[in-house]
Amino acid sequence: MFTKDGGPQRSDFADVRATNLAVVLRHLRVNAPCSRADIAGATGLNKATVSSLVTDLIERRLVREVGMTENRIGRPAMMLVLDGSPYAAIGLEVNSDYLTAVALDLGGERLLSWRRGWTGASGAPGPAIASLVALAKRAIAKVTGEQRRVLGLTVAVPGLVDPDGVVELAANLGWRQVDLRKSLLGALGDPAYPLLVENDANLAVLAEQRFGGHAGTADLVYLAGGAGIGAGIISDGRLLRGSRGFAGEFGHLPIAPSGGPLCDCGRHGCTDALAGLGALIRRALPEAAVSPAEFGPHVDEIHRLAKAGDPAVLAALATTGRHLGHGISILTNLINPEYVALGGYFTVLAPWLIPDAERELLARSVAGDAGGTRIVASALDSSAAAAGGATHVLDAIDAGALPTP
Amino acid sequence: MFTKDGGPQRSDFADVRATNLAVVLRHLRVNAPCSRADIAGATGLNKATVSSLVTDLIERRLVREVGMTENRIGRPAMMLVLDGSPYAAIGLEVNSDYLTAVALDLGGERLLSWRRGWTGASGAPGPAIASLVALAKRAIAKVTGEQRRVLGLTVAVPGLVDPDGVVELAANLGWRQVDLRKSLLGALGDPAYPLLVENDANLAVLAEQRFGGHAGTADLVYLAGGAGIGAGIISDGRLLRGSRGFAGEFGHLPIAPSGGPLCDCGRHGCTDALAGLGALIRRALPEAAVSPAEFGPHVDEIHRLAKAGDPAVLAALATTGRHLGHGISILTNLINPEYVALGGYFTVLAPWLIPDAERELLARSVAGDAGGTRIVASALDSSAAAAGGATHVLDAIDAGALPTP
Repeated sequence: MFTKDGGPQRSDFADVRATNLAVVLRHLRVNAPCSRADIAGATGLNKATVSSLVTDLIERRLVREVGMTENRIGRPAMMLVLDGSPYAAIGLEVNSDYLTAVALDLGGERLLSWRRGWTGASGAPGPAIASLVALAKRAIAKVTGEQRRVLGLTVAVPGLVDPDGVVELAANLGWRQVDLRKSLLGALGDPAYPLLVENDANLAVLAEQRFGGHAGTADLVYLAGGAGIGAGIISDGRLLRGSRGFAGEFGHLPIAPSGGPLCDCGRHGCTDALAGLGALIRRALPEAAVSPAEFGPHVDEIHRLAKAGDPAVLAALATTGRHLGHGISILTNLINPEYVALGGYFTVLAPWLIPDAERELLARSVAGDAGGTRIVASALDSSAAAAGGATHVLDAIDAGALPTP
Repeated sequence: MFTKDGGPQRSDFADVRATNLAVVLRHLRVNAPCSRADIAGATGLNKATVSSLVTDLIERRLVREVGMTENRIGRPAMMLVLDGSPYAAIGLEVNSDYLTAVALDLGGERLLSWRRGWTGASGAPGPAIASLVALAKRAIAKVTGEQRRVLGLTVAVPGLVDPDGVVELAANLGWRQVDLRKSLLGALGDPAYPLLVENDANLAVLAEQRFGGHAGTADLVYLAGGAGIGAGIISDGRLLRGSRGFAGEFGHLPIAPSGGPLCDCGRHGCTDALAGLGALIRRALPEAAVSPAEFGPHVDEIHRLAKAGDPAVLAALATTGRHLGHGISILTNLINPEYVALGGYFTVLAPWLIPDAERELLARSVAGDAGGTRIVASALDSSAAAAGGATHVLDAIDAGALPTP
């Protein structure tokens, strides 16, 4: 809207009414219970505007009145709170060896969290989509059975997803140019709520930012340790997607471009090839067959041996940590995050990965003290991306995309 | 403000009045002349609010009335325009071989653009600061002599600058831990307007985004080709600074970490060491002495020989372009910009750098078509960072940090 003169685009301001509705909603999310006058005082909006906005939010059943306050000087005031009960936000994830579903209410409380193992990463997307649709229908039936309206549904995919929900490439699923959003819309009967498809790490970082150990951090990266290493990047409080939505390909940063091991992508020395789970398993369990469908048991075994102090496994973790730290130094030098959270299969191994990763990060960062970047274990489990899918729906509400009354 | 629950920080909404003043100001920047009713219709603000906001903007002399419209149905309306005349935004740059100053009026028109060569990069910051202060005083005297009020002054430095304006490290100036902002505040008598210090590439990208060949692009990187290669990154319309302000260290991305040439930073195979101006000069003009103070003449000579088709110089440019494309592929994979503008000394050489850079970028990007990233020559000259400093002042006004009446 403001680009004609080359000024920065600030679409946040495009709809002032929606902006102000969201201001009130977010104020209540943090400060409820509070009165209309409290909101006016805190937000700078005048009382008539606040009254009108609150009426709107009550009609949309996002806010409800909970009775008069009594312990105040002056007239008693009607107190307001967020009304989570009539709504549900749903997130799903399809990954190489499992599917997950998470539903949250408006306040962020978990309504359901399901995980099912599967081995459908065959290359043909049909069976995967059918399983995903079945899981979506079960989740939708569960929340609508509780008289909740679905606010939105977001599906996490480990790959490149364009803004239209087409999966350009998901190497670990064997997918290329799969119009997942269109398939899901068809199978779910063109629902009225927003249905989106997004990269898994992009969604997981939203959950990490809202529910993780360093919730609220404005500059945060989530590294999804799986068959590949994806990054979800939040910079200055906002998800960094890039012009076509392809940001966060941490797994293919060149940390040993000449002479490094071959990566699945056909290049040499990518972070995936040196610090990915496959590389770790090959180092720590040289006898094991590396197949994405069996990462779980291998990671459990590595974890067990690390706790027992097995020297070869500790050395393998240290080497992997060092390569990870090299990759993270690129994040620090380019985008300077405050925290990098190790998620997915990395989480349980983080205590053995972090020391060498931090040493390498410090050595390779241009800014002193690694620019303040700290590597931490994610507080989230394998439902992170699905939880992030549901969080993405709540974030849209908080940003002003309110459900119609 | 909204971080207690881990939700994203949206400081934009902190002050609704300032937000709305800025909405009106930006609407006028793009659409003036227009009436109060036009503004109300376009922004969704009610007419009483718009009237009050416009009164405020007129008192601050940011907006003025230009008379009644006559060619409309219904009552004639008073038309409003942006009032650039009483203000000036100033930007300065200190670099290894020159100082620049730019002043802009509120509408972005250049009031002055000065450049002076110097060779003061001695390591002791005192003389550089004295030269900078003298230049600042001249620029301030020039605009105040024209009855303009200084809206703000921003100084560009080729190095790491923390949010308090302390230059942590500026290798090419020989600076470390220089509290430049404090020194300037003292020397300029603690002015009432904002005085900030910022990384040069961070500022140049703001100018590129407002005045460059692809103005208005939401995902844009400016690469400042000088003694080192700094990156200014705009993502989703906003400058990416990182948690401590140290983002954009493109020059130290590891494109040949083992066995690559030694970089000034002490590591091997950084982009600076392979694609920086020093590396290019050594390749193209093997007899030349490489000193930052003499980059200008060397670049002129390389440009002349390239135009003449000198095979050795063309090969040197192709090699440099290839390394540059390798570094840019890291940008594409991590942050997926739409345009990467080659600035500084790269600009004039861009026609010979871009073909090999784009070939390498395509080969190394995970997303097809290099994720849409295009490498272009910057449209700005060596005043880019200073112009960006002045632009930064205007951006703050546009974002709601208005001057007091």
